[in-house]
Amino acid sequence: MSRSRMEAFSDGVIAIIITIMVLELKVPHDASWRSLVPIAPVFLSYVLSFVFVGIYWSNHHHLLQVVERVNGGVLWANLHLLFWLSLTPFVTAWMGENKFAAVPVSLYGGVLLGAAIAYFILARSLLAIHAPDSLLATALGADFKGKISMMIYLVAIPLAFVRPWLACLLYVLVAVMWLVPDRRIEKTIAR
Amino acid sequence: MSRSRMEAFSDGVIAIIITIMVLELKVPHDASWRSLVPIAPVFLSYVLSFVFVGIYWSNHHHLLQVVERVNGGVLWANLHLLFWLSLTPFVTAWMGENKFAAVPVSLYGGVLLGAAIAYFILARSLLAIHAPDSLLATALGADFKGKISMMIYLVAIPLAFVRPWLACLLYVLVAVMWLVPDRRIEKTIAR
Amino acid sequence: MSRSRMEAFSDGVIAIIITIMVLELKVPHDASWRSLVPIAPVFLSYVLSFVFVGIYWSNHHHLLQVVERVNGGVLWANLHLLFWLSLTPFVTAWMGENKFAAVPVSLYGGVLLGAAIAYFILARSLLAIHAPDSLLATALGADFKGKISMMIYLVAIPLAFVRPWLACLLYVLVAVMWLVPDRRIEKTIAR
Amino acid sequence: MSRSRMEAFSDGVIAIIITIMVLELKVPHDASWRSLVPIAPVFLSYVLSFVFVGIYWSNHHHLLQVVERVNGGVLWANLHLLFWLSLTPFVTAWMGENKFAAVPVSLYGGVLLGAAIAYFILARSLLAIHAPDSLLATALGADFKGKISMMIYLVAIPLAFVRPWLACLLYVLVAVMWLVPDRRIEKTIAR
Repeated sequence: MSRSRMEAFSDGVIAIIITIMVLELKVPHDASWRSLVPIAPVFLSYVLSFVFVGIYWSNHHHLLQVVERVNGGVLWANLHLLFWLSLTPFVTAWMGENKFAAVPVSLYGGVLLGAAIAYFILARSLLAIHAPDSLLATALGADFKGKISMMIYLVAIPLAFVRPWLACLLYVLVAVMWLVPDRRIEKTIAR
Repeated sequence: MSRSRMEAFSDGVIAIIITIMVLELKVPHDASWRSLVPIAPVFLSYVLSFVFVGIYWSNHHHLLQVVERVNGGVLWANLHLLFWLSLTPFVTAWMGENKFAAVPVSLYGGVLLGAAIAYFILARSLLAIHAPDSLLATALGADFKGKISMMIYLVAIPLAFVRPWLACLLYVLVAVMWLVPDRRIEKTIAR
Repeated sequence: MSRSRMEAFSDGVIAIIITIMVLELKVPHDASWRSLVPIAPVFLSYVLSFVFVGIYWSNHHHLLQVVERVNGGVLWANLHLLFWLSLTPFVTAWMGENKFAAVPVSLYGGVLLGAAIAYFILARSLLAIHAPDSLLATALGADFKGKISMMIYLVAIPLAFVRPWLACLLYVLVAVMWLVPDRRIEKTIAR
Repeated sequence: MSRSRMEAFSDGVIAIIITIMVLELKVPHDASWRSLVPIAPVFLSYVLSFVFVGIYWSNHHHLLQVVERVNGGVLWANLHLLFWLSLTPFVTAWMGENKFAAVPVSLYGGVLLGAAIAYFILARSLLAIHAPDSLLATALGADFKGKISMMIYLVAIPLAFVRPWLACLLYVLVAVMWLVPDRRIEKTIAR
């Protein structure tokens, strides 16, 4: 079973998720700079989520480069990941419209954690149908970044109730950590 | 005539359907956990529909793997299936916003039945242009699950007026039945 | 220059157009059958437009099958067609919400005419870069259906002000004419 | 690393951006021609943005034709471009609903400038991983049009506060300049 349609479908869903989030930037009725102030937190929230969804797309792209086959279980592990990503527009808008209040910031972390776990499951379900010395297994390695991310989310989710801005800072930290290019897969392919 | 553009177009439409449903999760103005309670049924309804649309995508993917050719009639049978799936966001939102009331639950079953019949027609129109000993014919076989699903919908649609939650349970049952991986096509390809 | 990305982009845009139209089916707040009555004309309008956009996708698919090359001019002729199609959700909703009143029905015909002209221009711009004995030229032939459609729209647009339902009937007539499969291109390929 | 998924994802995002802009054309409740008058500026704004996004898609298409490889940095340069393009629906609607008032017209130019800079960065990041005598390097050349566009935006952004219509005229000028087909890449490939 080829991976190409799974890629195409994921590209479609992720493209829509990353784009419809911008619909939550409600157009102000006024034409002044000041009228943009109330939507500034929604915009910031949008930028953060754009980066996160972009990271998932980029990682998904890298991951599937070294995949040799998929099966029904992998398709569903992938749909499970897309499900969590599809909740991003909702939590992004909720967090932005409430100016990064405690509960939405915490739930935002919950959705990020859900997506991280789903990505982990997807990687495992792929490893299960590849040889231990396959490109995929070599490229994934110990998945250090993935595990660190999940631990940071687990800290940030309760922290949001005490210091929401600190939880947000942790989310930004995770994003920055991933933006530093992950050369593992590129290197493995090159070799 | 190649099947690749029919796959690409279907992937696009299904990706949009599965993603725009989340727009019906209206962002609450309040930032409390309690403000999420009213949208809980909309969320449950979304999860159910996400799974159903995911099942259709997965089955569509499997089906087209063994298709050797398509023609104009197949394109329209496919558009007919996409039409029914495109009604999913509407009935999902209606059912969720009315907390699984009788009429919306019944209509939801009607749309599921319409999609099931459309899928059946698509499979028949494909069989009509493939040899009886083709991979497609072998893989589809008696299509036991498809027929059972339609019968369950026919029971659930009137049942919704007496016990809406029982009709919902039947929908969940169908979803679970399909989630158990359908190895027919995978096995046939392997052989 | 390859045609594949032009196909992919067109598939994406047409998939979105055909799917976002359903967002105009506003979910009623009530859970009764009666609450569906006011949206019945919007639904009918949606079905008509789904069929029209489906016809364009199907014809576009057939047309590009026999295309050997594209250039910058073709890309813009294609974008021009997508522009007219992108106005479909607007006129569909306007016509449906006003129960097929004269002005919206007339404007609906105007958008259909615009799309038909754009399709004609696209076909001409493709013919201009293909040999007169190419598959494309043979398959397109005299384009009888395309010319008839434009003439019917030209009749329907003013007719809408006298008898809106008659104009609608003409639109349905055009749709039915196209649904009867156009075997020209399929036959030409087969030969 | 192949460029095909980057193309597919970009096609998806650009297709959605170009299509959801039409959702800002709010359907009037009335069925008269007069009811269309208030949305005329939104329509004009939509047409302008459709052309701009179309230009980006067409240029992106041409650019990637001559790309031999991509890497992680290119993926992010591309996502950065998509980010600026994703802001187009917002500024388009704001500008249209405020009848081309000073501040929205200026911000519209800001988003165009952002996209132009992002496109420039994308081209640079591609040049960095291609040989100086590659097709890409030859085809891009001095990128005269790109530099002129940025300079015009830099003039238009402050000018919008004095004469908004003049700034709009400059935007139209840039669009027309790009619509005149850019044969550089086509010619380079032909050679």
